[in-house]
Amino acid sequence: MDAEWIRHYQSRANRALDQRLPSVDLHPGDLHQAMRYAVLGGGKRIRPMLVYSAGVAVGAVLESLDGPACAVEFIHAYSLIHDDLPAMDNDELRHGQPTCHRAFGEALAILAGDALQALAFQVLGQDPAMIPGPAIRIRMLGLLAQAAGSRGLVGGQAIDLAAVGRDDLTLAELENMHIHKTGALIRASVLLGALSRPAVESAVLERLDRYAKCIGLAFQIRDDILDVVGDTATLGKAQGADRALNKPTYPGLLGLDGAREHVCALHQEALAGLEPLGAEADPLRWLAAFIVERAY
Amino acid sequence: MDAEWIRHYQSRANRALDQRLPSVDLHPGDLHQAMRYAVLGGGKRIRPMLVYSAGVAVGAVLESLDGPACAVEFIHAYSLIHDDLPAMDNDELRHGQPTCHRAFGEALAILAGDALQALAFQVLGQDPAMIPGPAIRIRMLGLLAQAAGSRGLVGGQAIDLAAVGRDDLTLAELENMHIHKTGALIRASVLLGALSRPAVESAVLERLDRYAKCIGLAFQIRDDILDVVGDTATLGKAQGADRALNKPTYPGLLGLDGAREHVCALHQEALAGLEPLGAEADPLRWLAAFIVERAY
Repeated sequence: MDAEWIRHYQSRANRALDQRLPSVDLHPGDLHQAMRYAVLGGGKRIRPMLVYSAGVAVGAVLESLDGPACAVEFIHAYSLIHDDLPAMDNDELRHGQPTCHRAFGEALAILAGDALQALAFQVLGQDPAMIPGPAIRIRMLGLLAQAAGSRGLVGGQAIDLAAVGRDDLTLAELENMHIHKTGALIRASVLLGALSRPAVESAVLERLDRYAKCIGLAFQIRDDILDVVGDTATLGKAQGADRALNKPTYPGLLGLDGAREHVCALHQEALAGLEPLGAEADPLRWLAAFIVERAY
Repeated sequence: MDAEWIRHYQSRANRALDQRLPSVDLHPGDLHQAMRYAVLGGGKRIRPMLVYSAGVAVGAVLESLDGPACAVEFIHAYSLIHDDLPAMDNDELRHGQPTCHRAFGEALAILAGDALQALAFQVLGQDPAMIPGPAIRIRMLGLLAQAAGSRGLVGGQAIDLAAVGRDDLTLAELENMHIHKTGALIRASVLLGALSRPAVESAVLERLDRYAKCIGLAFQIRDDILDVVGDTATLGKAQGADRALNKPTYPGLLGLDGAREHVCALHQEALAGLEPLGAEADPLRWLAAFIVERAY
């Protein structure tokens, strides 16, 4: 794992996000402030980093990756705002700060989330630095819309809601939930990065998709493990929150050791998918390691 | 006004919406049920009718208009779901039925709105019956994203929130709110319809945009008038709701007669914008009359 490389792309993502968010000087300023707070207040930028590293792995130009990197992060940020609402998980802390609705009120938080979703599609459709032509952009927009919708991220949230308090959930059901809730956007991040090089081959896209599926699931299991063994200060959100809500988790179903072994197997499978790719895929390898080893 | 024509395009819109909404047999069924309830439960389909009639006015093919018609209605429907939430307007009735959150709970209502927004962009990007090529579709997606975002519809909602209880709002401020809140999506509806004929001239687009601006504002003033003179049974929502929330309105600022005169002037200006267009623009003329004369 190369910590310097991670920091480099995190800063690039933060700069790109800041540039594409509407200024607080633009009307309505309070809405723009809430949007900026939710996006710029923190976050690991895993999805933007996946866009950058998948793009770099196939030879895409960095400037062309900023738009897609921001689009996936705007979708992610909006989903966290809505997820934290009193009617959903009712969380008070996010990235060690008050959640958006605690800082700006529920109504403005709902609207900030709504506006961030629209901004994601606007940036992906109109970012001037993107190299792919309209036909590929339309494909990218379709991928993002599907990953964000009722058969992707939002669908996963709905499955999650229905699973609260159910202690009879099977491993297959739990996996199905996470494939939608986290997996869909992680896969879209990798594919949007790769499609940013217009000439990318479909065989390479398939390999990268396999990588994305594995680390998407590994990411979620690691999250569940951290909810058991992490501490609130490092996580920036309440430790034990899943158990408190009686949500089904991997450690709950497989035990802590079983969950750790599952992460390890998925990590190996992700790396195997990258095998034919050379050193240019190293960022994807580092990122896989970062995801399975992270402490927050 | 041709009531039969209105009914014809309303039914076409309802059929197109039904076909493009995910089936309740698809997982997660409860989310898809909430989405279908909110969209198919009622509504005048003003925005789809604007798409159809603007398209017909410039010679677009009807089949190519179904996708854009659904996209604007999905955005409209999602905004109503979120607008009705307890943290926003806290409405119990919509189209004479319980609002989405009263029927499905707050959490699922928030998610149904989120998924409908994603579906709007998915349909506009991928609908197979649409004739325009990728370059025009990208333009259409950009227009919709801007109309839906923080400088359009969501921005208008935020301005509206900040205006509750302010009795010193000027006419200019009130108009600015409605230009964002209702006007942006109505303009996008007309433009998406017109762009569905790829060869449409920019001079015609500008005329149609002028028409759209006028009827967008007329629509809102009519809404405010109905809130004073309508009755709850005809409206399908609580009469007097704006006054109860102490929201600024046109009748409040201009008096009832002044507001009616303003609607009349905007109606004339909208029709003037259509003057060079022949009988093929009659649906747009009928629709303008429908909007200013409607009782619900």
